[in-house]
Amino acid sequence: MTSFSGVFPYLVSPVGPDGSINKPVLTALVEHLIDCGVQGLTPLGSTGEFAYLNNHQRLDVVRTVVAAARGRVPVIAGVASTTVQDAEQQTRACLDAGADGILAILEAYFPLNDEAIEHYFRAIAAAADNKPLVLYTNPQFQRADLSLPVIERLSHVENIAYLKDASTNTGRLLSIIERTRGRMQVFSASAHIPACVMLIGGVGWMAGPACIVPQQSIALWRAAAAGDWTQAMALQRPLWRINEIFAKYSVAACIKAALQLQGFAVGDPLPPQQPLNHAAREEIAAVLRDVGVL
Amino acid sequence: MTSFSGVFPYLVSPVGPDGSINKPVLTALVEHLIDCGVQGLTPLGSTGEFAYLNNHQRLDVVRTVVAAARGRVPVIAGVASTTVQDAEQQTRACLDAGADGILAILEAYFPLNDEAIEHYFRAIAAAADNKPLVLYTNPQFQRADLSLPVIERLSHVENIAYLKDASTNTGRLLSIIERTRGRMQVFSASAHIPACVMLIGGVGWMAGPACIVPQQSIALWRAAAAGDWTQAMALQRPLWRINEIFAKYSVAACIKAALQLQGFAVGDPLPPQQPLNHAAREEIAAVLRDVGVL
Amino acid sequence: MTSFSGVFPYLVSPVGPDGSINKPVLTALVEHLIDCGVQGLTPLGSTGEFAYLNNHQRLDVVRTVVAAARGRVPVIAGVASTTVQDAEQQTRACLDAGADGILAILEAYFPLNDEAIEHYFRAIAAAADNKPLVLYTNPQFQRADLSLPVIERLSHVENIAYLKDASTNTGRLLSIIERTRGRMQVFSASAHIPACVMLIGGVGWMAGPACIVPQQSIALWRAAAAGDWTQAMALQRPLWRINEIFAKYSVAACIKAALQLQGFAVGDPLPPQQPLNHAAREEIAAVLRDVGVL
Amino acid sequence: MTSFSGVFPYLVSPVGPDGSINKPVLTALVEHLIDCGVQGLTPLGSTGEFAYLNNHQRLDVVRTVVAAARGRVPVIAGVASTTVQDAEQQTRACLDAGADGILAILEAYFPLNDEAIEHYFRAIAAAADNKPLVLYTNPQFQRADLSLPVIERLSHVENIAYLKDASTNTGRLLSIIERTRGRMQVFSASAHIPACVMLIGGVGWMAGPACIVPQQSIALWRAAAAGDWTQAMALQRPLWRINEIFAKYSVAACIKAALQLQGFAVGDPLPPQQPLNHAAREEIAAVLRDVGVL
Repeated sequence: MTSFSGVFPYLVSPVGPDGSINKPVLTALVEHLIDCGVQGLTPLGSTGEFAYLNNHQRLDVVRTVVAAARGRVPVIAGVASTTVQDAEQQTRACLDAGADGILAILEAYFPLNDEAIEHYFRAIAAAADNKPLVLYTNPQFQRADLSLPVIERLSHVENIAYLKDASTNTGRLLSIIERTRGRMQVFSASAHIPACVMLIGGVGWMAGPACIVPQQSIALWRAAAAGDWTQAMALQRPLWRINEIFAKYSVAACIKAALQLQGFAVGDPLPPQQPLNHAAREEIAAVLRDVGVL
Repeated sequence: MTSFSGVFPYLVSPVGPDGSINKPVLTALVEHLIDCGVQGLTPLGSTGEFAYLNNHQRLDVVRTVVAAARGRVPVIAGVASTTVQDAEQQTRACLDAGADGILAILEAYFPLNDEAIEHYFRAIAAAADNKPLVLYTNPQFQRADLSLPVIERLSHVENIAYLKDASTNTGRLLSIIERTRGRMQVFSASAHIPACVMLIGGVGWMAGPACIVPQQSIALWRAAAAGDWTQAMALQRPLWRINEIFAKYSVAACIKAALQLQGFAVGDPLPPQQPLNHAAREEIAAVLRDVGVL
Repeated sequence: MTSFSGVFPYLVSPVGPDGSINKPVLTALVEHLIDCGVQGLTPLGSTGEFAYLNNHQRLDVVRTVVAAARGRVPVIAGVASTTVQDAEQQTRACLDAGADGILAILEAYFPLNDEAIEHYFRAIAAAADNKPLVLYTNPQFQRADLSLPVIERLSHVENIAYLKDASTNTGRLLSIIERTRGRMQVFSASAHIPACVMLIGGVGWMAGPACIVPQQSIALWRAAAAGDWTQAMALQRPLWRINEIFAKYSVAACIKAALQLQGFAVGDPLPPQQPLNHAAREEIAAVLRDVGVL
Repeated sequence: MTSFSGVFPYLVSPVGPDGSINKPVLTALVEHLIDCGVQGLTPLGSTGEFAYLNNHQRLDVVRTVVAAARGRVPVIAGVASTTVQDAEQQTRACLDAGADGILAILEAYFPLNDEAIEHYFRAIAAAADNKPLVLYTNPQFQRADLSLPVIERLSHVENIAYLKDASTNTGRLLSIIERTRGRMQVFSASAHIPACVMLIGGVGWMAGPACIVPQQSIALWRAAAAGDWTQAMALQRPLWRINEIFAKYSVAACIKAALQLQGFAVGDPLPPQQPLNHAAREEIAAVLRDVGVL
């Protein structure tokens, strides 16, 4: 199995008024990010508004990204569902469309016990036909969370090789790394400080902000990978303001506003979500200018 | 507009291994409940596992219930989505299929402000072509909740005529009733004591437990409607044990287990949800025996 | 053991700038409430700011209330602590000062298991020398809560005879009443609708709002006790607006502002708590006028 | 003002059955920690069970620690209250007793707004007579939390020079550091990975675990201070297991059990808190053995 590391931006999902995916703008964004040197691409994470798209729209996003990437970098497609059966079908559809791996997300309505949660992720792993899986856990927005014992057990499944944790609890990541060493790698989310996640053993990050500061994100990752922590923190400090804004406002509204400011006509988050207001756009613009990407 | 009141059981959604709706068993359940005298039927509430069904499955449930009801009682179909566009389409499809009203549910992933929440419900009301809407609010399982000011404003929309609140906070219901008198009626959920909701002005209840104790639920409603509160509480006390079990275990697992015990082959909740274990089934069976429905 | 029922206002704790209890104003308030016909008095509930007073101040409050009541109505004194030893000492001091019963409150910093929680309340019951205990549970402000199994076990202790629950979950009260029938009586808090709590078997209420609407509270209780639920609800509806304000603002700031408006110079809540601002005072004044107590 | 940095163990509070402080054992612990080379001592943090002690007991703890330290290292004494007046008195008493600084903690019962929270900490700073203050924020156990704007404003008060944050959110620390550079220094808590906090600019840690692994904690701090992050992480990894146990069980029960295992007769946490059970003691003993302190 290939080994993933580095910067995997979470992509937005630009959707037109008729509900169709805006393929030209998504293709242009992919081209731009690959030009900037990202190590991979992740459509249909939280930032990609998976929770607002039906399965046809989701598959269109994946197909567009795979076609635009043309094999130059791996594409890890998000799969999210409340049922095993639907998750398996989404997984197969993504891989048939050319995805190189799956970001596995569990949605829930009623509470689930550990056994049910483990069952869900094992089923996706089995459906993925030995393509690698990234476990995604986001206690902020999802109603089911992966406990340490479940993560430890899942790390023994051969193709469950990565985890992206979107909690703000960096200590939890160290506990995961210590329990799964040699079997599973950890990616940072925008709710963590990537430099800290790299220090404790993380291999990169998968996050929305990387869409708008790809070169700076890659420079930070290279400094960390080289063990130059002074340089890593020097790069990290100004970038953190972007993460702060993503935490302050809705992630989807932030990323779409920032990309619009950078010239990508990705549209607004899907209603009833609201676009950022004028003041918040100005706040993002000021930060983008400060870090030199506007 | 017709006026709804009384007992509207939340129906289960029996689904076969291939994902198709089990129409014979759902039809038999509808027939049984109408025989027992229920005032209406509500497919696709929480109990109906809407969160685990795609739009095709949901529409099949509604069509089956409408066909089985044959106009004898009104059918209020659940509509739930994260986007306005999808909710509007579901609404039109339910009404085309013959539903008499809509139970409107807002799903959310990222947080929403009051303006966005109001926008969503107004859009469903407009799409419902003057058929009545029941606002559904369940702070336990949903990530967006209806505030009192939003409810007050929505109560001025002509066809937003009912509200079902699944919080456990009965005082909140009195606050709603006092603010919307003459424009909106309130139904109890299984998280409230129906006798109390009736005392403060509620017009009935929409809940899963009514599926398994329909006659007792109707008797309680009739006593309350007649102002015989001593009799209402005498009926309420033994029934409360069913609500306790629904609060203790997963609602979907409880209702499907209880209906199986009563001879309806409704199957288990959709995986990765788990059916009740043996001990919990015994606990439900004991309560059903005590209230005389097993 | 005497049997408590009816309206037991939670008293405020008027404290001067030097930290001493303002005995004349507290005495005047007690006299006024007894004149109005209350069935008992409860110093040192949440409304009485127990959490802001040291043990000397607390005991001074109890002594003042006992002296002012002159045996005309029972005094149930609040005891709250994080440790068993301190709670036992407070209990003995209150009873030595002439209190007729104890409102037992558990404060916590680190989480406690059920066994520890049970131990705490049993120790107070033993220290109370067979004087009656009211268990007080307030999940909103306290870090430890009484589970149903613990309440059931404690109800078998002879002098644990009452419970006041300040959750908003009225169904929980019915579950408690059904499990402790014949051994324990339930009082309503301001977070519940007293008419509903009476309907399901409650014997009265212990709450801050009763301090400012004592006659109306007693009329409501009499209607409910007589089984005249139509009259009870007619009295309940306008009173509910007071509970809404207590839920909207800080309870201590509300009660002290309202009593000031009624002519009792009880002062402001203890700093850093802030008194109500002008707009909130106007809001309370309007409600007090509407219910005829200003 | 002197500048604090390094390892400041949170001390336990050994209390005898009669409620008196066990001075010999607390003195022995202080001597041991100074022998091990700690940079300072912090009595009356969460680990010190301040929430379970009255003001006399608290002052006895501070006096004992100051006397034992004999000026060799600074003593930062915890002050915690729900009222401004009591906090000011505690502050003056601690400084009169010889403390070199104050760890300022806000307890709350009713919710407080930002203005009230800021008022509380400014009052302590004024009472501290220009001795340095450490702001302590612990969203897990306290009902009031310091927002970023309040922290920023407080950092302009001359003697508010440090902050200890016990959230698990390391990103929040970076946000604080970026906003208060040059005016306030940050210490790690046991809920963070100290190596990460040092990487982003922290100056040390104040935590319970440092009581039982003082030499290892100091070695880690020295490696981090020297910029040797490879060594820092090599030391950090095994130590993290201690933090995991402190998060899994009650902090007070853990620290007292571990110190008992190391030969300090500090007793058990104050009832109704329970001591660790046998299995948990074995788990701690195994970890202590692994890191070489048993």
